[in-house]
Amino acid sequence: MSASTFAVGAEDRLARFVRIRRQTWALCAGLSAEDLLVQSMPDASPGKWHLAHTTWFFETFVLGHDPSYRSPNPEWHYLFNSYYESAGPIHARPRRGLLSRPTLEEICDYRARIDDAVAARIASGIDEALVARIELGLQHEQQHQELLLTDLKHAFWCHPLHPAYREALPVQVSDAPMPMRFLAGREGAQEIGHADSDGFAYDNETPRHRTWLAAHALANRPVTNGEYLAFVRDGGYREAGLWLSDGWAIVQREGWQRPLYWQEDLASEFTLAGMRDIDPHVPVCHISYFEADAFARWAGARLPTEAEWENAAASKPVAGHFQESHRFHPIAAPHHDGWLQMYGDIWEWTASPYVSYPGFKPLPGTLGEYNGKFMNGQWVLRGGSCATPHDHIRASYRNFFPPHARWQFAGIRLGQDR
Amino acid sequence: MSASTFAVGAEDRLARFVRIRRQTWALCAGLSAEDLLVQSMPDASPGKWHLAHTTWFFETFVLGHDPSYRSPNPEWHYLFNSYYESAGPIHARPRRGLLSRPTLEEICDYRARIDDAVAARIASGIDEALVARIELGLQHEQQHQELLLTDLKHAFWCHPLHPAYREALPVQVSDAPMPMRFLAGREGAQEIGHADSDGFAYDNETPRHRTWLAAHALANRPVTNGEYLAFVRDGGYREAGLWLSDGWAIVQREGWQRPLYWQEDLASEFTLAGMRDIDPHVPVCHISYFEADAFARWAGARLPTEAEWENAAASKPVAGHFQESHRFHPIAAPHHDGWLQMYGDIWEWTASPYVSYPGFKPLPGTLGEYNGKFMNGQWVLRGGSCATPHDHIRASYRNFFPPHARWQFAGIRLGQDR
Amino acid sequence: MSASTFAVGAEDRLARFVRIRRQTWALCAGLSAEDLLVQSMPDASPGKWHLAHTTWFFETFVLGHDPSYRSPNPEWHYLFNSYYESAGPIHARPRRGLLSRPTLEEICDYRARIDDAVAARIASGIDEALVARIELGLQHEQQHQELLLTDLKHAFWCHPLHPAYREALPVQVSDAPMPMRFLAGREGAQEIGHADSDGFAYDNETPRHRTWLAAHALANRPVTNGEYLAFVRDGGYREAGLWLSDGWAIVQREGWQRPLYWQEDLASEFTLAGMRDIDPHVPVCHISYFEADAFARWAGARLPTEAEWENAAASKPVAGHFQESHRFHPIAAPHHDGWLQMYGDIWEWTASPYVSYPGFKPLPGTLGEYNGKFMNGQWVLRGGSCATPHDHIRASYRNFFPPHARWQFAGIRLGQDR
Amino acid sequence: MSASTFAVGAEDRLARFVRIRRQTWALCAGLSAEDLLVQSMPDASPGKWHLAHTTWFFETFVLGHDPSYRSPNPEWHYLFNSYYESAGPIHARPRRGLLSRPTLEEICDYRARIDDAVAARIASGIDEALVARIELGLQHEQQHQELLLTDLKHAFWCHPLHPAYREALPVQVSDAPMPMRFLAGREGAQEIGHADSDGFAYDNETPRHRTWLAAHALANRPVTNGEYLAFVRDGGYREAGLWLSDGWAIVQREGWQRPLYWQEDLASEFTLAGMRDIDPHVPVCHISYFEADAFARWAGARLPTEAEWENAAASKPVAGHFQESHRFHPIAAPHHDGWLQMYGDIWEWTASPYVSYPGFKPLPGTLGEYNGKFMNGQWVLRGGSCATPHDHIRASYRNFFPPHARWQFAGIRLGQDR
Repeated sequence: MSASTFAVGAEDRLARFVRIRRQTWALCAGLSAEDLLVQSMPDASPGKWHLAHTTWFFETFVLGHDPSYRSPNPEWHYLFNSYYESAGPIHARPRRGLLSRPTLEEICDYRARIDDAVAARIASGIDEALVARIELGLQHEQQHQELLLTDLKHAFWCHPLHPAYREALPVQVSDAPMPMRFLAGREGAQEIGHADSDGFAYDNETPRHRTWLAAHALANRPVTNGEYLAFVRDGGYREAGLWLSDGWAIVQREGWQRPLYWQEDLASEFTLAGMRDIDPHVPVCHISYFEADAFARWAGARLPTEAEWENAAASKPVAGHFQESHRFHPIAAPHHDGWLQMYGDIWEWTASPYVSYPGFKPLPGTLGEYNGKFMNGQWVLRGGSCATPHDHIRASYRNFFPPHARWQFAGIRLGQDR
Repeated sequence: MSASTFAVGAEDRLARFVRIRRQTWALCAGLSAEDLLVQSMPDASPGKWHLAHTTWFFETFVLGHDPSYRSPNPEWHYLFNSYYESAGPIHARPRRGLLSRPTLEEICDYRARIDDAVAARIASGIDEALVARIELGLQHEQQHQELLLTDLKHAFWCHPLHPAYREALPVQVSDAPMPMRFLAGREGAQEIGHADSDGFAYDNETPRHRTWLAAHALANRPVTNGEYLAFVRDGGYREAGLWLSDGWAIVQREGWQRPLYWQEDLASEFTLAGMRDIDPHVPVCHISYFEADAFARWAGARLPTEAEWENAAASKPVAGHFQESHRFHPIAAPHHDGWLQMYGDIWEWTASPYVSYPGFKPLPGTLGEYNGKFMNGQWVLRGGSCATPHDHIRASYRNFFPPHARWQFAGIRLGQDR
Repeated sequence: MSASTFAVGAEDRLARFVRIRRQTWALCAGLSAEDLLVQSMPDASPGKWHLAHTTWFFETFVLGHDPSYRSPNPEWHYLFNSYYESAGPIHARPRRGLLSRPTLEEICDYRARIDDAVAARIASGIDEALVARIELGLQHEQQHQELLLTDLKHAFWCHPLHPAYREALPVQVSDAPMPMRFLAGREGAQEIGHADSDGFAYDNETPRHRTWLAAHALANRPVTNGEYLAFVRDGGYREAGLWLSDGWAIVQREGWQRPLYWQEDLASEFTLAGMRDIDPHVPVCHISYFEADAFARWAGARLPTEAEWENAAASKPVAGHFQESHRFHPIAAPHHDGWLQMYGDIWEWTASPYVSYPGFKPLPGTLGEYNGKFMNGQWVLRGGSCATPHDHIRASYRNFFPPHARWQFAGIRLGQDR
Repeated sequence: MSASTFAVGAEDRLARFVRIRRQTWALCAGLSAEDLLVQSMPDASPGKWHLAHTTWFFETFVLGHDPSYRSPNPEWHYLFNSYYESAGPIHARPRRGLLSRPTLEEICDYRARIDDAVAARIASGIDEALVARIELGLQHEQQHQELLLTDLKHAFWCHPLHPAYREALPVQVSDAPMPMRFLAGREGAQEIGHADSDGFAYDNETPRHRTWLAAHALANRPVTNGEYLAFVRDGGYREAGLWLSDGWAIVQREGWQRPLYWQEDLASEFTLAGMRDIDPHVPVCHISYFEADAFARWAGARLPTEAEWENAAASKPVAGHFQESHRFHPIAAPHHDGWLQMYGDIWEWTASPYVSYPGFKPLPGTLGEYNGKFMNGQWVLRGGSCATPHDHIRASYRNFFPPHARWQFAGIRLGQDR
């Protein structure tokens, strides 16, 4: 891990720290303590838990890096450890919704107290190791900002009255996007992965390495709601031959018939602004890997590999529609040439299982549990979404979820062999 | 159902209504909105849900008794219906903890609004049918007061930090109770059940009818913690021969080794005042039917039938240690002759499955679902507990829970054949 | 337990032993080793297991009563113990279908070897204690004969091709039975239970004791398929208000819409002779307690209590249609006055949970586990069925099953208050 | 799919068909119909089902290829279809153990009948398409031969008495193998996958394509029991940090402490010859991917990728210890240079998830379900085992199982970065 983006100077570091930490809290504005306690499924966490866990991360790995540090709330350590087995016993994930105590107010104080302490540390001058840990904490905070949004969306959707996260979110009236076209990618021995000189990256993006790309092409834009609707109407969810075996099993067991948040009428969908008409021109989202893969087969195409995706994306600036727009929903693709919406709007499922790169070395110590131990049964997603902070994403960024996960802003870009 | 206790006059009715409704709220004093949202298991409900459901009961069965009534919140009907199938679809019980909305504050307003409307109805003069429904609503409210306490106790116990419901609850230093003695009950054809002239009763307590009692005796007092500890230490939880087959299965599957809230050291237990020393002289509680039955077998005795219990209890005034003492935990038995603690302190498991009395007729319409449909797989408990309101209990009162339920204030009085 | 029916003399004892043991084997005639290995659900056992377990019972409780007895197959003890915890560890019930070894042939030899040894014991003269144990073993054998038939029926029904147990079973063309009429039973203090002087009974039928019967009447005959069909067609399975709460839950969870073995067309049903037309005049069977109870509510009646049933049945000779007819399916009621088909054809669900009689004492030692430990969560059935051996049933006989069990030959006789 | 190995001439084809089909039956010699009916877990099938399903495969895809073909047993189609959704509805996999009918004898006849018909077809001269389908059927038969052995092993192990599949299997007394050494593999752009000109291969081995190999080395031989025992004794199963997150979850949930068939004493293990001493010099087997991966981490190494493995293996003749040795258990590695035991003895887990090769095209029609739809959640294994027929394996062969699967003869070869 390198931290050069962060290490611009003591003041900038502090400003960045303060800005990102405040943004998490800002995402909770207008929500009640009750809204922030609900846990709608084992995979999702209560908002309050996100607020506390990200703070615990700074307390444990930044303040706690100093062996003389004594936590004023050592008993909270158990509550807010997510999955770091080597950091001690862990409160069971599906039971996070039971944590009425500490109250939201106490967590708010906790955040302030830890923020003050970290800020004082930054102001007093810190070595590179601590700079790196603070930056990791901020990147971690940004990941949880996105999860906070997707977990809240799921919780509100599970509520029988389907309340909106924010009533006032802007509505977009979209024009039809450009026709889908396949643009050839580079072939042969190509490098992917994060180069050490390029600023922060997670360990799972390294080392930069060579891979071999066969002849291929990627679609110029993601699949839209309108295109996905054609798949639904064509009986896509009733045709076993389109699905992976595990996918077909879940389609039948769970009765899947459409994307997670679409209503039965195929005309409206649940968004963070409540129920809205489905815009046919906007990228489809909240679909699983299984659905993305079945759609691609139906369309006579396939999903891109992560190497193909990264190779294409690396040629483009990291620009698009992110959390900062405060829309919290994808918008239609712009009209111009080349690959569109590679970054932002929706995470794009790839045909690549999440495994280590050749020569991968996890971070040393407890932080080595951050990424590496999840390299089983998950698929890589690329590019960030409308819920991702703009400065959090990069071409080499590897997100990963199990193939049945639907509650993320995940969609489809098609690929094909050439 | 008769409502003579209630029908003293318009003013007394109103005072009783206001007092009981306020008491529910008073039990929530000092708790946060978060404390009142937690659902620790499917059998338990969040405090907020209790507050809302009891209000829904008055809205539906008292205000809604007038066909011209229009609810300002018809969409809440679905949320707060507990199990009345004929009143419409029902939010699934295990998902009550997801109901962040309406907020606690909104529920508080809801209570006030419905209370005002019911009070106005009472003040304007009501017929016997409505008097009966209001009384049923108040009895129902009192049942939920007890459940509110036991559900909160379970939720706080499930919290890894074991917070106390109320820190300031009084501690009792107890003397040893009198030795256990068995006192003969009446034999032959005996009447049990509620007589119509005796004021309010649930439908399941009627009709009063004759039953035949064989020669028997009941212990003068409940089994104490100290006596139950001897059973534990004697290997009671490891001896299959002491248990019903279903009980032994759950002992092994769940790893039961002691009463629900006892700690592993057999020296302290979780109470609504937090962790406390186990008082050996106080009645054991938070045990299941299976445990009560196994203890009785170990002790060479048996549990009383509900008819034996009622026959003995009917001779005694309804006096004892109830919710009003604000201890929320049993206390030691007093020192005098005869049957002690028949009412209050702990519900007493009986050897009687919960079935209908000969000639039983459920209430007409939707309220017929109140009791009758649960007559399978449950056992009768008698006498009320330290969490029961004093004026809620009577000799003919039939409480019922499944044999594995442990989170109620339930204990043991032994019986024997003569 | 008294054994006077058995103790007629050494020869008769021996003949009875041989006859009953052979009958079990005869029920397996024409079945393959594979047919006898299938276990279609945890509640059912493979035929081979029944053959072995009943033999184990004699080996353990008759031969093993002699402390010098050494089993030639001590390792089988674990395999064929059903639920006697005090007799040692037990192979898990749902895994009985894994017991390919010992083979059917070895079990056949096992039966012969134990039979020879028991016969030799009988011939050599035995004391009353052993006589009683042999009689218990024979009664036990007869219970398993019935279970063998109902378990095989379930296994063949689970098979996609629905093979018949015996193709050649006779078909009955039935006339319409007499109209259903309710005949008053005796009221007041009445005795039920087995009197010691009356020959063999299980411990759970004792002691004979007084109970109080309110005014009531019992239907002259069981409910027929035609009558039950009217309930189905009237939407009985869709009307929550007719069902106990637990019953309604299972109706929805399992999608119950008709009796277990009825086909979707409501015209044919699976029998031990394969698929056959439903005979409208024959008693309905293979229904659960929940269905019997819901039907009774729909019919404006109720189920009889076991005391009411026994009081009525005690006045009648034990005659009817049993296993010996080799029909293995109920037939229509005869045409005459009084209560018909009290014995045989179908077990009749009663409104009585299975609990102990006042003064109940289980058999001493391991055999005390035979009945008493199951006194939770089950309901009593009375009268025997077309699969019960004639000489196995009596007025005081108490069969018991959980309320959801459907695979027994269980039906309905209605009762009512007077 | 090419079929050149098969297409040597009409006679050789016939001889090969007869030999392979007979071999399946030979593996069942000495087993009873009951042994062949047991299904010990949903992942395993009864022996009889394997016998029938492989026959169904020939009937459906070879005989049924002729549209005029009429099956004499059309109702069996449902029973013996494994997972071909487009071939019609399918009997649920976990319920295969219920299929008492058709009997083993009927299946035996079924095999003979279909074999005769296929043989007649071969003798009468067949086109390339049918040759290819027959060859696929034979390869399929060989896969099921291995599964038959591993499923029987699991079934016998689940039996409380742990019977042996074959008592008479030879015991090997092994010398210590050569020390483990890492031998460098080829780097850079390398080709893997099956070339069309090379005889039969499954679709998932194609197309042959280029991949990029980083600098690496593979161990000269598999990990032995003795080496794995050191991992166990060092607390490998208690150290979360060694495990993938999903692996650690299963270690805790299932209580894993050693390989599947090792006994608690770590001195003996269950084999197809019954319980035997663990030979420290023999490759460890019956471990999951999770265990292989954890062992590799503990050993400071990693698992090879499938490309690394294939690149190394392609340089070696397909020779080793296979099903034909009739040992059905791995033996110790021979003493010579280079990579040892690449083929046979144990399948080797690779670090490669099972996904499609670039340009992969599944077989057309129903046979396209053979491999492609399982490309989720599984890991590739290479090299064949002691239960694999010799002529079934090749360098490009890709076996795959979920990461928790332990009942195959699967072991470990270590790899490392260079």
